[in-house]
This record gives sequence, C-alpha cells and structure tokens, in this order.
Amino acid sequence: MPTSFPDLIAKKRDGKELLDEEIQEFVKGVTSGSMSEPQIGAMLMAIYCKGLKEREVATLTLEMKNSGETLHWPNEWTDVLVDKHSTGGVGDKVSLVLAPALATFGVKVPMISGRGLAHTGGTLDKLEAIPGFNVSLSHKEMVKILAQVGCFIAGQTSDICPADRKTYAIRDVTATVDQIGLITASIVSKKAAENIKALVLDVKTGSGAFLKNETEAAKLAQSMLSCCHRLGIKASALLTDMDDPIGNMVGNALEVIEVIRCLQCQGPADLLNLTISLGGQLLHAGGFSDSVEEASKKLRKSIENKEALSKFCAMLKCQGVDATLADNLCDPDLDPTALLPQAKSTTCFQCHQNGYIQRIDAMDIAVAVHMLGAGRNLPGEPINWAVGIELLHKPGDQVLKGQNWIKVYHDQPLSDKIEIKIKKSLEISQTPVQPKKTRVLRVFT
Amino acid sequence: MPTSFPDLIAKKRDGKELLDEEIQEFVKGVTSGSMSEPQIGAMLMAIYCKGLKEREVATLTLEMKNSGETLHWPNEWTDVLVDKHSTGGVGDKVSLVLAPALATFGVKVPMISGRGLAHTGGTLDKLEAIPGFNVSLSHKEMVKILAQVGCFIAGQTSDICPADRKTYAIRDVTATVDQIGLITASIVSKKAAENIKALVLDVKTGSGAFLKNETEAAKLAQSMLSCCHRLGIKASALLTDMDDPIGNMVGNALEVIEVIRCLQCQGPADLLNLTISLGGQLLHAGGFSDSVEEASKKLRKSIENKEALSKFCAMLKCQGVDATLADNLCDPDLDPTALLPQAKSTTCFQCHQNGYIQRIDAMDIAVAVHMLGAGRNLPGEPINWAVGIELLHKPGDQVLKGQNWIKVYHDQPLSDKIEIKIKKSLEISQTPVQPKKTRVLRVFT
Repeated sequence: MPTSFPDLIAKKRDGKELLDEEIQEFVKGVTSGSMSEPQIGAMLMAIYCKGLKEREVATLTLEMKNSGETLHWPNEWTDVLVDKHSTGGVGDKVSLVLAPALATFGVKVPMISGRGLAHTGGTLDKLEAIPGFNVSLSHKEMVKILAQVGCFIAGQTSDICPADRKTYAIRDVTATVDQIGLITASIVSKKAAENIKALVLDVKTGSGAFLKNETEAAKLAQSMLSCCHRLGIKASALLTDMDDPIGNMVGNALEVIEVIRCLQCQGPADLLNLTISLGGQLLHAGGFSDSVEEASKKLRKSIENKEALSKFCAMLKCQGVDATLADNLCDPDLDPTALLPQAKSTTCFQCHQNGYIQRIDAMDIAVAVHMLGAGRNLPGEPINWAVGIELLHKPGDQVLKGQNWIKVYHDQPLSDKIEIKIKKSLEISQTPVQPKKTRVLRVFT
Repeated sequence: MPTSFPDLIAKKRDGKELLDEEIQEFVKGVTSGSMSEPQIGAMLMAIYCKGLKEREVATLTLEMKNSGETLHWPNEWTDVLVDKHSTGGVGDKVSLVLAPALATFGVKVPMISGRGLAHTGGTLDKLEAIPGFNVSLSHKEMVKILAQVGCFIAGQTSDICPADRKTYAIRDVTATVDQIGLITASIVSKKAAENIKALVLDVKTGSGAFLKNETEAAKLAQSMLSCCHRLGIKASALLTDMDDPIGNMVGNALEVIEVIRCLQCQGPADLLNLTISLGGQLLHAGGFSDSVEEASKKLRKSIENKEALSKFCAMLKCQGVDATLADNLCDPDLDPTALLPQAKSTTCFQCHQNGYIQRIDAMDIAVAVHMLGAGRNLPGEPINWAVGIELLHKPGDQVLKGQNWIKVYHDQPLSDKIEIKIKKSLEISQTPVQPKKTRVLRVFT
C-alpha cells in the first residue's frame, strides 16, 4: 500500500492497477483537498496515458458517488427508480418526452440533468424556456413530485459527487476529458448518487457527438454498462446516430414546442422512435417488462392516449409553471408557440440545387444555433431561449432548387459566419437517399 | 500553433513533438503563472509518459535558462569558463578538490552548487562546516574571486532559472522527477545560466546513485551531453560507480578533512583518481589540452606541488574564512580535525568474520549518516556538521574477524536502526576480491 500521493501517482504512471484502497485514498485526497492540484493533474494524465481496468473504473465511480450526499427515497420505491443518461446531442430533447412517458408505468424517474456548454444544449436550459419552470428542487420537493407525478427534471445540487466536480474542473483544463474510464466514472457516479435501480444510456456517435468515432463511442457504452453492472444498477446502453439533429427543432423554446407536439402524437418520427427505443430497453433491463417489444408498445400507447402528455403537464405544474399556462401549453387545440419566448425574425434558406438531402450536419447546425445565442461559452452566462432553427426537411427528402429547407429564428441580423455554417451543413445528392429508419446503431445489454 | 495550454498538453499527451515556439509558450506560462499548477502537473506527466526528443530537451533547457538572470563575465574570460556537475553521490567531495586544481590552469570555475536533501550530501553543507565560510556571493564578489583565485563554490541565487525551480517543485510531488529529458533540462539549464564554455558531467550509477540502473544512467549521460552540444557548451560525460562511498569519509566536516588531506597528497586513491579523470576530460573537452592524459598529468602535478592546496586556501579566505584559520586548516603539519566541528563520541564496528571486503553499500551508509543528523528531510532544516562515518577499510581489503572496519562519529547514543543499517552495509567474501582500479565505468564525448 503506497503511503503517499507521489507513490500513488507513480504506480499508475507505471501502468499498474490501483487497489481499491488506493483509489479510495485518491478520491478522499481530491475531496478533502489533501491532494494538491498539480498532483491531481498529474494523476489524471497518468490515467489518461495508462488507462483504467473495469474494476478500477467501478471503484472510482463508487468512491466519487460516496464523496458526497446521495438521494434517499421511501423504501417502497427501491425497485422502481429509473433514469436515462445521454452523452449529449444536437436537438436532443428525448428526456422531456421519456420522463413523463415512463411515469405512466408507475416507475419513479428522479432525473438530474445538466446545463449546456459550448455546442451542446442543456435539458435544464430547454425547460427554463417555459416561464416559471423551477429546476432547483429541494429533496423534500423531489419526493413529493415523484409521489404525485412520478417524474421530475432538476439540476444537480452541490452536495452530489463533489470529487467528480473538482476532478472535472481539472480535467477540463488539462486535456484529460476524453478518457473512457474517467468519462464513465463521472457520468455513472452522478447517476448512482440518485440511488436508482435501472438506467438506460444513450451514447451518441457522429458529427454532433462528443465522441465522433463509433469505435470509441462503443467502448464508452460498454465501459458504462460494465460499471453499472458492477455497481448493481440494471442497465442497457444504446449507441445512437448523432450525424444530423434529432427531430426538426434546435433551440430552447423551439425544442419544448417539439416535445409538446411529440407528446400530442404530432412530433417527428425519429424523436418518437428514439424515445421509445430507449424507454423500451430501460423497462426491460429494469425487469418491468418481459420483452423490449412489449415495453415499447406500451410506451407508444402512453403517448397515443395522451397519458404521457398529462404527466408532462402535471410535472410542469409541480415544478413552478402556472397551472393555466401548463394546461394551455399542453392543449392540442392551442399553438404553444405564442406562450413561449419568440424570436423577432425568421429567415429561410433555399436549396441550391435539385436532389435528395444526403446530410444535414449536426455540428454545423449546433454551432450556428450557438452563434445565434441559444448556448453559452462560460458557465452562468445568460442564454437566449427564443432563437434556434427548424429543419423543414430531413435526410432522404427530395428537394427542388429554390425550395426552403431550413427556417432560422433570430433576434439579430444574421451574420455571414452563421449563414456560412448553415449553408455548409446541407449536402444534396443527385441520387435518391434512403431515409434513416432508426437512429439506434447498436444495443448493449 | 496551439492557442491554449490544454491544446499544448494534448499535443504532448498524444506523443507529438512540440515546436520550439510551443516549448517557449510552456516555459513562459510556468514562469509567469499563466499556466495553472494542475496544467503544469498534467504536462509534466504527459512528458514523462511520452518523452521528449533531443531537440525538445535542448529548447526546454534554453528556455529555462532564459526564464531568469544569467551570470555575465568579463569578455576576456569567455573561452576559459568551466564547471563540473555531478548527479550526486555518497561521500562525493570531488568538487572541493577539483575546483582549486582546475584554477591552477588559469581557467575560471564559477561553481554554483546545491544543498543536500534526503540521503544526498550537499557541497554547500560540507563547506559550511568550515567556520565563517560564506556560500551567498553577490555577482560582484563572484567576479572578484574568479579574478583573484580562479574558482568559487557558491549557492544558486533565486534569479537563476525560476522556471526550473517552479517545475522542479511540482515534479517533486507528482512522480515526474526521474524523466531523462526533464532531468537534463533542469541540470543543464542551471549550468548554462553560468555562461560557461566547457562542462564535465559526472553521472553516478549504483546503489548510492539517483539512477541505480546503469542503462538509465548512460541514457542520462548521453542526453545531457547532446543537450550541452546543442547549446554550444563543450562537454564530456563520465559514467561512474556509486556502489560504495567515494573516499573514506562521509559527513560534512569529515569530508572537508578528507579534501584537505587529498590536496596534501594524503587522500584516498579513488577520490584523487576520480577528480583527475573528471578534470582531465573537462580540460581536453574545453580545448585546454591536446590529450586527456596530458591534462590529467598536469592536474596530478598541481596537487603534488600543493598549488591546488594554495588555491583552496585562497578560496576559503575570499569566501569569508578567517585567514589564520584557513592557513592552519591547510598546513600539512597541523591536524585540521580540531579546527572543525567535532562529534562527542566515536564508536567502531568489527568484522563478523575473516575474509575480503566485497562491498560497503553506499545507500546503507548514506541512510545511516543521514540518521546521525548529517542531512535534512526538508529544505531549511539545520544539520549536524560534526557527525558521520569513516571507512577504515575499502572493498578488496583483507580483514580478520573482530577487526574494526568503520568508525562512527556521533553526538547521540547510536540507535538500533543506525547500527542495523551500518552492519547491513558490509559484505565479506571468503575468496579474494579485486580492489576497484577506477570508479569510471564509461566516458562519453
């Protein structure tokens, strides 16, 4: 057993496996501050260069979870607490549809979510586009909403996984973010701190994903799955396509509108199908359904019969939205657009040739939307909920030269840079393009 | 050209070579404080794991040298400034003999030296055992002593190589000390800041050395040599044996006594021969002699004719030692022992069997002497100049059971731990052992 942090760092530097007690010592050193910041930086780089075995990742995850508070629930819920995690995508509003749909099953969904940074949109930012929506819930409020509705979507409290927060801040400036084991521990520790029974992981790959390379993304999916299993969380992981935006809307209020339409059975097929795929896998992994197909069928039904919409509406009310506003937003006979922040202007772009849409690059769209003001560069910066884009066509569609293919919602005149990004995102093929049947590339169970 | 420190770290992390401008950016970031400590820790670990090419090491060395002040000398000295560096050994008092011997040649020796930490003894600590000796010289004093005597031995000023000082403090706690390129840059930058023309490097290997493995030590020798050449410093490097202590004395005042005896032609052969080997290589590399043999012969003569002793005496006087004390210390008819700090007690240990001394482990002796109080664990701690050990026999000597082989000079009763270390250091063989002819294992030019 090494007696000092330099010995501990040297062991990993030399490519050796750390014992459980050594990983515990490392995490305690981070949490207490007894390990200095240069030592944490060096340790993270040693881990980056030499890697972590599955056992080490699981122990690191467990210790990070135990570095702070965890969420406790009434005993009778122990077996029904479930959640979803996505590695982050463009136009990814799945959580807002999935949480209420799952709640219709009687499971409890304590969804702790994050804010957007750089090109990724944050689930909390999207919800805050709804006037009155409160993402800061006390533990008492969380229990109350889970009891009444069955789901909430809230921000992380500062008491959860302090070791992860400190480690992440250092990873962020030391080029040690994209290491599979460290990503796994960071994600799974926060989910484990929710004390859930089952988890579904949506691991994105493609232009708009954090891990663009499919092999790397598959490795992350397997690493997170293995980690969950070692921690006693029932899980499955889906590798999903993030080459073009999910659905048609990208932007905060615009995505809320799309969510409501989806819950009214009027949303885009790719968003609905992805939501049902994730939910089906989760319910099956958690043992709530004999087959994925059966669970998927029931989930689809909860949307068709508007039960999920009712849950969404109830969640809004419980999280601070005025009851009349919530009812109006969810009313299929009313257009929610006027009830949410609206951009001053819209501008459409036209196809430059006849053909078939081959691709609408997710990253280009994300950057353009970010430049419109929908995202932030630094934590705490204000964002513009109203701006964004709407795809009028999706890959596979046949288009004519001069036809509108995208609508931009903006408050300022469009800069050349934004125009260039948007135009660059579109690829038109001369030959027919097969529309995507599913965004799911692989399932790991 | 990367625009941020994380990009710079990522480049090295991925095993790529850094451009000269990038290394400059790194060193400037360290010196100015704009690169954060976790970033420095991560960069050092990336360097440790991925290595540095010779060009990168030379550029790093140059930038570290340029991060602070450098020593400037009268123009007419440009071609005659020389120095020696040792990676540190047990009983290594070579500098105290070599500097005055070199000064008899008319070369200038601005020897900037260090203090001991852990098991290594520091040249400055040894000199401070002489009452009045002043290791803190102003630049003006340095120039004056070089003009009058030709050599001084002083401590580093805080203005020299601040980037190295800061980097070293971080390496020390992040398990990134023993990386060949970083060691090279740290050592050579400080020597380069002396603006010397020629340098000889004494790279130790064996039990009492920093690098115990001979292959690693040879790599360091070659790395430092290549770095010197790229920086325009004429150099040679000697790989030397550090398995048993150099000479017979280990301890501060005791080593000064041995130095004086050596300069009076009464010192141990291994100390004298090592000093002459290093000096001969240095004078030849610097172009002051047509051959190593000729230079060595002249150096030996400077000791035989007491010219080196006179230089040593003059240096003591110039560095604050009372003139009468200096003269008495160097007087061959007087015993210097009484003029220096003396331990209260001495204890001898006896051989446990008849035979031949196979080995006296340098590290065991160093640790024992450290425990006696001759060294320090933290910078700034006081040390005991009087304590130490004297080897009454050396490897190769025939000994009888019960015969004294080591004398310990101590102020406190000897602890069990010290006794065990001392006894453990001795290895006696039943068959004759060849005495070492030379401590020099390899010469790199």
